[in-house]
Amino acid sequence: MILVNGDVTPQIAVVDRGLAYGDGLFETIAVVDGALRHWPRHLDRLTQGCARLAIPLPDPDLIGRELDTALAGEARAVLKLTLTRGTGERGYRPPPAARPTRIVQRLPWPALASAPARLGLCAMRLGRNPALAGLKHLNRLEQVLGAAELDALDVDEALMRDDRGHCVAGTRTNVFAIRGATLATPDLGECGIAGIMRGLVLDRASRCGLAPHVATLMTADLIAADAVFLTNALVGLWPVAAFVDATGIEHRYAPCAALERLRHHFTVERLVP
Amino acid sequence: MILVNGDVTPQIAVVDRGLAYGDGLFETIAVVDGALRHWPRHLDRLTQGCARLAIPLPDPDLIGRELDTALAGEARAVLKLTLTRGTGERGYRPPPAARPTRIVQRLPWPALASAPARLGLCAMRLGRNPALAGLKHLNRLEQVLGAAELDALDVDEALMRDDRGHCVAGTRTNVFAIRGATLATPDLGECGIAGIMRGLVLDRASRCGLAPHVATLMTADLIAADAVFLTNALVGLWPVAAFVDATGIEHRYAPCAALERLRHHFTVERLVP
Repeated sequence: MILVNGDVTPQIAVVDRGLAYGDGLFETIAVVDGALRHWPRHLDRLTQGCARLAIPLPDPDLIGRELDTALAGEARAVLKLTLTRGTGERGYRPPPAARPTRIVQRLPWPALASAPARLGLCAMRLGRNPALAGLKHLNRLEQVLGAAELDALDVDEALMRDDRGHCVAGTRTNVFAIRGATLATPDLGECGIAGIMRGLVLDRASRCGLAPHVATLMTADLIAADAVFLTNALVGLWPVAAFVDATGIEHRYAPCAALERLRHHFTVERLVP
Repeated sequence: MILVNGDVTPQIAVVDRGLAYGDGLFETIAVVDGALRHWPRHLDRLTQGCARLAIPLPDPDLIGRELDTALAGEARAVLKLTLTRGTGERGYRPPPAARPTRIVQRLPWPALASAPARLGLCAMRLGRNPALAGLKHLNRLEQVLGAAELDALDVDEALMRDDRGHCVAGTRTNVFAIRGATLATPDLGECGIAGIMRGLVLDRASRCGLAPHVATLMTADLIAADAVFLTNALVGLWPVAAFVDATGIEHRYAPCAALERLRHHFTVERLVP
């Protein structure tokens, strides 16, 4: 089911700025046992995104009702919420009184990998722009081109770096590296998407005996790590079995007690889908 | 009038990847005296864009017929052609057999500035990514945020720089600086859109006694120039009267014989709208 501004319809206006310029934001929300997982965190990120892009935030209660309507009682699904700056005349300049378009889509729960991931390395790099970094905005061509490499790399997910070689994220996941008692994940001040599960892992790490550390990570740091894992709102925590570097050499990870503690915590607390 | 895949309709599917990820390209074509200006150059840029994004290019004759249908005999108008990767399931990975969506919009000829431009400087920077540089793709949030600064800057157009301070382009124009017999314009290998009029000016400069030079331009180079002008497919050549730098100081340009030769050439050859 798809709702556009509350109406059931599978279409939007061609003149919507979401299509014209990717002028908007989105959230991908896991629904498990009929409940939206981490909706307050999704709403918080959306709120911050609207503030940074100067898009008026619609009433959160209205958004919540539309999500419920689209869910229609399904127990397990994915809700995709898209918010654009609305329709407008030709031209980049935002209209003075934008009326955002709210789009809610219910999608079937996807077939997720149950096995640990084989992680490769994208040739495609991420451009840096602090003004857009962290946001889940609709300008995602870099991720599209990164994801297009997955088949040829013969991997489940691939790491994207910026022009300096700093690791940023997978094409659809955030990345973490455990070394000793430290849990490191890339700083997203220049590019990348601040994932909901990433925030939750950083918040909960210390309960599992790990010191969270937002850092500069190079591929050498991943290779030297005790364990590497990926996160997103649907897959939860996804251990990496092997990292295939730029030369094709496969670096395998041994079982890691700290990673198992983290996975156990998220499972018993029912924090992952 | 709006055509989507040849059908008259003002709507597209919510699940189009153009909306979801900005996964597509567009062209803004001037129509003057009933004729599409520089259509071969637009088609060439679209063809290159499709090749670089691995979007299958539809039959150019079909696109041409749809542009004619949308124009419907109007003598003066703007035709906006958008090509997306088409519809798809959730997820960045491009579908293996993409069926692109063709969107053709006829828009009224805009009210263009007749006076020389007052050019300001955006705080918003352009991220660098050679894989996307030069393309007129649908990921245009940077231009949107740049254009949002125009009112506060109290200028007609504003210059966007990359993170190194290199001048790249105006929010909706390319930029040129004349100094002596040299005509310089920023290199677009890292970011920016390779405008149709920019290409034409570079091709014709030598006929007007100017040596074209694709270069690194800093704001100091604009300030030191004899003349500065802007280009796009609708405005043609737009002289800059004054450049307002980051400190608010206004640098005015004296009349420049070389710029007048260039404008004369483009006018008599009927190369500008």
